[in-house]
Order: sequence, then structure tokens, then C-alpha cells
Amino acid sequence: MAYTQTDLKDLHHFYSNQLINDTVPFWFPRSLDREHGGYLLMRDQDGTLIDDDKAVWIQGRAAWLLSTLYNTVEPRTEWLESAKSGIDFLNNHCFDTDGRMFFHVTKGGQPIRKRRYYFSETFAVIANAAYAKASGDEAAAEKARYLFGKCIEYATTPGLLEPKFTATRPSKGIGVPMILMNTAQQLRETIGDPRCDELIDGFIKEIRTDFVKDNIRCVMEQVAPDGSIIDHIDGRTLNPGHAIEGAWFILHEAKHRGNDPDLINLGCKMLDYMWERGWDNEHGGIFYFRDVFGKPVQEYWQDMKFWWPHNEAIIATLLAYTLTGDEKYAKWHKMAHDYAYRHFHDKKNGEWFGYLHRDGTVAQTAKGNLFKGPFHLPRQEWYCSHLLQEVIKTKNDL
Amino acid sequence: MAYTQTDLKDLHHFYSNQLINDTVPFWFPRSLDREHGGYLLMRDQDGTLIDDDKAVWIQGRAAWLLSTLYNTVEPRTEWLESAKSGIDFLNNHCFDTDGRMFFHVTKGGQPIRKRRYYFSETFAVIANAAYAKASGDEAAAEKARYLFGKCIEYATTPGLLEPKFTATRPSKGIGVPMILMNTAQQLRETIGDPRCDELIDGFIKEIRTDFVKDNIRCVMEQVAPDGSIIDHIDGRTLNPGHAIEGAWFILHEAKHRGNDPDLINLGCKMLDYMWERGWDNEHGGIFYFRDVFGKPVQEYWQDMKFWWPHNEAIIATLLAYTLTGDEKYAKWHKMAHDYAYRHFHDKKNGEWFGYLHRDGTVAQTAKGNLFKGPFHLPRQEWYCSHLLQEVIKTKNDL
Repeated sequence: MAYTQTDLKDLHHFYSNQLINDTVPFWFPRSLDREHGGYLLMRDQDGTLIDDDKAVWIQGRAAWLLSTLYNTVEPRTEWLESAKSGIDFLNNHCFDTDGRMFFHVTKGGQPIRKRRYYFSETFAVIANAAYAKASGDEAAAEKARYLFGKCIEYATTPGLLEPKFTATRPSKGIGVPMILMNTAQQLRETIGDPRCDELIDGFIKEIRTDFVKDNIRCVMEQVAPDGSIIDHIDGRTLNPGHAIEGAWFILHEAKHRGNDPDLINLGCKMLDYMWERGWDNEHGGIFYFRDVFGKPVQEYWQDMKFWWPHNEAIIATLLAYTLTGDEKYAKWHKMAHDYAYRHFHDKKNGEWFGYLHRDGTVAQTAKGNLFKGPFHLPRQEWYCSHLLQEVIKTKNDL
Repeated sequence: MAYTQTDLKDLHHFYSNQLINDTVPFWFPRSLDREHGGYLLMRDQDGTLIDDDKAVWIQGRAAWLLSTLYNTVEPRTEWLESAKSGIDFLNNHCFDTDGRMFFHVTKGGQPIRKRRYYFSETFAVIANAAYAKASGDEAAAEKARYLFGKCIEYATTPGLLEPKFTATRPSKGIGVPMILMNTAQQLRETIGDPRCDELIDGFIKEIRTDFVKDNIRCVMEQVAPDGSIIDHIDGRTLNPGHAIEGAWFILHEAKHRGNDPDLINLGCKMLDYMWERGWDNEHGGIFYFRDVFGKPVQEYWQDMKFWWPHNEAIIATLLAYTLTGDEKYAKWHKMAHDYAYRHFHDKKNGEWFGYLHRDGTVAQTAKGNLFKGPFHLPRQEWYCSHLLQEVIKTKNDL
């Protein structure tokens, strides 16, 4: 199947409308914490607050979303003001005395937990960068650049952060080059940073060389430092939705570089491999974990369907289709889109459920918690809406 | 319903037979690591090894099981020799230079991960104590007593172990008094230790005072240091199977103390409360997590059915029935037993699957991994078999 120009226009309308009239209104303005700043995002299906704590990742992600809506959808004052509230909360309450960020704080900003990695920082980078573009606030731009430098330092200085595992069996995850690549892309597209292009080249090279395995058609989630497969349970565990997210980060880079054919080829391979391994042919949807050799996965909930892999697959397949015109990707996009909006979307209250059983029934009703908030879904609807707008402007039927 | 003397004899035969002819032969002798000592326990449904790493908790638990079989079922030389292999592996490879134990090591004993708590140590205590009784090895007895002292020290010295959370919202879990109570019970029953009775009194007092909430008929999994409920997602999360395990530890203590009516009452209340909250009236089986106020649980797999809560519920209900004669407990025992042996037991290969979807279908086929091994199931079959043997000797129809 191919998408006609009408199909693409319908999809554009659908994503734009969902974003502005369904997803964003679920969260805002009700999640604004008028007392302490930042956002109260841990909510049940109908929006009832189930916990007033704040997840630092998601404070940053929400501030990024609000700033990005202001920058790219419409310059609504309330979005800019709401973004500022999150930026201020991050700056005032989410940094420890060692300069690293917390993971989980109370509504008033008292720390509950700090973790051994720096993903709170990467989301603070994209939040500050997008907010700096929206507001013109040079301090936010400087903060974004400084924190990005810290993230690069954490990633490249062995022993700087306390390790979770001993040095007996060293490994590295695809998550680090992926998140840093996307952070660099965001930084470049909002406020610019001369470090980004070269760093992105390096992240892509690492993914291509060490994580993508053409011989077994697979993208590994973890490998040994030399890229070899670690044949133990953790080393064999694949996360198809995560690898598919990595695929679209690379396809996005291909597009940024004038449809670079080599990067299109790499991103499409990653998508192909992990769609084959991740799509559930029996019930539909994308499995959370798989074992590279088909052995049991330690995580017993491995066959559940989570919301965010579907957001990433919707972006990746649509981007692959617009870049290649390959009808396979239109078909996959329709499969992922139809499955997701049928099973995850809450028609009654808006937004998506986060967690389905393998058979597509809802396993847990929260819309927001320590790990889920206004990010993957609105990012998908925003990204696809903008992508389709470009495509509709520049092409007839693909 | 009541169990007749014939029912009890049938159950006794069933558990004894399962233990010796189904469960234990799944693991031994094939799991003995003849090269490095200890056990290779990470196995798929048919016994195929899926990982040759060693989980330190489970090395200790397996050495406990083998020693206990030798002590209480039959003095088979191979069980004693196999127990010694695990004890030696623990002593030679599982301790860090600071005296604390690792969590996860390679087959050769190289450390992979150390965690911030001391459950590896508690299982090393029961392993050494049971092995000391079996072998007469005084060094093992000393090791058990010494490590038990270290566990008490870790539990009672604030700040001795690095905390996972900040001091902003202090909390404590029922797991600590539970595991230490059971460890003390094991120590007392194998090699004796004059500290145990008083310590057990203290653990029971803490559970009764701080975790058991009669007003809402609930056993909390975590509370504030003063026993109050922490109304955040983590603080509200209940683990019914774990609380039911705690219930039988207390019922076991009641029995040890000549059927102490106050402890019988406490243990039965805990079982009643958490059976009501944990049993799935729609599909059968025990839910993994519940929220005390019926809100969404953060762990998305909260409605899965795990093997071990069912082992604990089978023991707790049978023990409550033999101590009280209340027919309700015979009914619940039959419900838990029938559900578990129908859904978890692998009739083809022996042993149980570990992880079922809510509807009772198998979610993951591994029999052994970093968290599952020869412990809860053989302990249940062993405990119930011995309990029934006593009951059959001493009573007519209950």
C-alpha cells in the first residue's frame, strides 16, 4: 500500500488535532503547580492526581514540550509561562550540591532519590534549549550548553559516576549514544552548538559499528566495549521499541543532512531488523523485550505492550516512508498507528494508557507516574504533524 | 469444607512425592557445577542452561535446601556433598573485601554486582546453619552466627549501608523484620542461638505495631518509621504474597511456642487481610501488587501471578487450618493449591513456571534466573509435608 496525498493530509489533520485537542489538554493547565512551580503529572486515567511527587526527567520533558509547542505550533503566552515554571523548578530544586541532578523530588523540591546516570540532565538540556529559543533567555541557553558538556563528560570519563556493576564483565548500552545524539540534535535545532555535528557523527559511528548486527539482522541493546555480544541473560535482552527510536534519530539526521543515503540505509536497516523481532504477529503491537537467541527474557513482563515503543514506531515508519517511498513502511506505519490509537488511546478522557497486557487489554490505568508523562505521545503527534506538513508542501503522492 | 484425615494423608503424600520426585530432581544433580563448585541454576523449562552466572541469594538458598533435605527427609550422602559445594562456593567467592556479600557473580566467582542490602547474607546464614547441623561442621555454625550478627548490625545501625533514597521521606519495609525473623527461626531450629527468641519478639512487635492496620484490614509493605502510611505511590503499594509469607512466619512462631493464641490471632489476621486484598476473584491466583486505596500501582505488571506468593499462601493457609481448625482456611488452602498446581506446575518437565499473566497463561518459561531457583516451591512442599506428618500423627479429623 502507498499513502495518497489525501491520506497524508488526513494523517496530518489527525495528529495535529490529537496533539492540541486531546493530548495537551489532558495535562495542561491542570498540571501546573501554582504553589511550587513545575508540574504535578502523576495522574490516573481521568486526570485525578495520584501522587504529588515530581519525576525530574518528566519535569524537564514537560518544559521541553511546552517550549516546543510555543516555538513550532503557536506562540501562546500560557505555554511560554508554563515552560518557565518548569525551567525555574528544575534550576531551583533539582540539582544536588555536586552539580548532578536528582531523579525524584517532592512537590516542594526536596530530594527523594538520585540515580547513577545522567538522564535527568539530558532532559534538562533539551528543556533549557527549547525554552531559550522560545524566550530569548540567554541564561537558559548557557545552562543547556553547560549541562550538555557535563553529559558528554559523564559519558566519556570512565569512573566519574559510580558504576552499578563491577568491572568483571564490562558492557555499554545503546541508550547513551542514542540519548546524546537526540540531545545534540535538539540543541542544534533550537539554539545551535558548534560541538553537535561532530559528536553526532561519533554517536552514529558507535551505533553502526558496535550495536547493529547485519549478520543476525539485529540491533543490540547492550554489548561488550568492543561490540561483541555478551551471551548472558542481560546481554541477550533486546528492546525493539528503543532500537526503533534510535532508528528514527538516525533517519532524522539523514533528513537534516539533505536525505543522506547512507544514513537512510542505516536507519531503515535498524527499523527493519527490530520490526521483524518486535512486532507481535498474533495480537499486534510491539513486544517490550525479546531475547536475541529466542531464550527466556528475565523480565517476566517482557511481552507487555507499552505506549512509548508505539510512539517511536509511528515516527520511525512514517519517516522511513517519507524518505524512501517504500510501501512497506506505509503498511507498517498503518499497523502501528491503528493498533496504538485503538488500544492505547483513552477515548473517554484523552491521552493514552501506558501499559497493556500482551492481548491489548489495559494492565494499569495511570496516565502519569514516575516514568510516564507528557513526552513520547505528544512528541510523536508533534513530530509526525510537522513531518507531514513538510511532505504535503513538497510532494505529490509518494 | 473441612479436610478429613484421608484428605490430609493424601496431601501429605502429594507434597512429599512432588518434592522428591518432581521438584528436587529438576535441579539436582544436573545443576551441580563440578568445575567451580556451587550451582548452575539459570535454566529454561526443560532444564537447558540459559546462563551460567550465579545469583548469590540462590546459591545460599540451594545449599539450605540440600542441607535441610539431608537433616529432615533422608541423610543422603549426595545431598550433603552437594550442600558442601554451595557452602564452599559462598565462602570462597561471594564475599567482598569489606565483609559484605555480592549479589551476582560469574560461574567462577568473579563479582558482577553488589547491592545495597544484605539479603545475600541472610540466605548464607540459613545455608550455613542447616549445613552445620547436617555435617557437624563447627566452622559453618560459627559463620552462621557471625553473619547473623552482621545482619542485625546492618539492620539496626542507621547509615552503615549506603541508602538508596535520601532522608527526605524516611520509610521502612516489612521485609527486614520478616526475613530476620525467619533467619532467626532457622538458626534456632538447626544449631540454636541464644539471641533468637528475644530478637523474634522484637520483629513480631514491630510488624504488629507498625505494619498491621486493623482499621483498614491491611498489612502494609512499607510505612514511615512511626508506622504511619506514606500516601505516595510507593508507600501505598501492597505485596499480598509477601505479607502472607510474613503471616506464616508468625504462625510458625505460634506453633513453636505451644500454639500461642495471641500469635495465632496475629498471623491469621494478616492472612485474612491480605487474602481478601490479594486473591483474584475473576481468574484465581494471587495478584502481585495492590494499592492500599485502590489507586493504580506503578509496577505495570502488578496483576501478574508469580509462583512464590502461591507457595507462601499454600503454607499459610494450611498452617492456619491446622492451628485453628477454621474451615475457611481449608477452603482457601484448596483454592491456592488447586490454582497453583494447575497453572504453575509443568507436568512435562517438572518444577513450576515462575510467571503467569493475570489469566493464568505462562508469560515466561524460565525455571531459574537471577531471582528464581530451588527455594519457595521446594520449601513449601517440604514444610507442608512435615506439617501434615505431625498433624496426621497427633489428630483425628480436624
